[in-house]
Amino acid sequence: MKARIHITLKTGVLDPQGKAIQTSLGALGFDGVDKVRQGKFIELDIAADGETEARERLTEMCEQLLANTVIENYTIELEA
Amino acid sequence: MKARIHITLKTGVLDPQGKAIQTSLGALGFDGVDKVRQGKFIELDIAADGETEARERLTEMCEQLLANTVIENYTIELEA
Repeated sequence: MKARIHITLKTGVLDPQGKAIQTSLGALGFDGVDKVRQGKFIELDIAADGETEARERLTEMCEQLLANTVIENYTIELEA
Repeated sequence: MKARIHITLKTGVLDPQGKAIQTSLGALGFDGVDKVRQGKFIELDIAADGETEARERLTEMCEQLLANTVIENYTIELEA
């Protein structure tokens, strides 16, 4: 089963990478760009009996390793 | 207009970050995980007259700054 995980900084947490991108886009002449935030995107294959089990294990993976839940949110999408 | 950009390594390009995640997940006891690939995820607000213009400008941003098109692919999603 294919899974897609998005890890993003929580609202209110400073995002220097996003800020740097925004500044660079401005310097290149791209106007009207705002609220740039950069996150991580992880794709993986997981062997599981059904979507519920897969989602449970992926949640554990995010909590234990993939995301820093103090400052990051994560979302899990599954493709059959 | 809200835009979501995914930047992923092209097939065949080695992904040491993905490999490290896969190894770490295995070490934590998560079995059955394969083909881990890590990419970047950028969210931003763009001021544009319509979806076509926004997509054109975002494509230029990806080509010029956000993605390294030698080794990376990008996809652009727009939300009204």
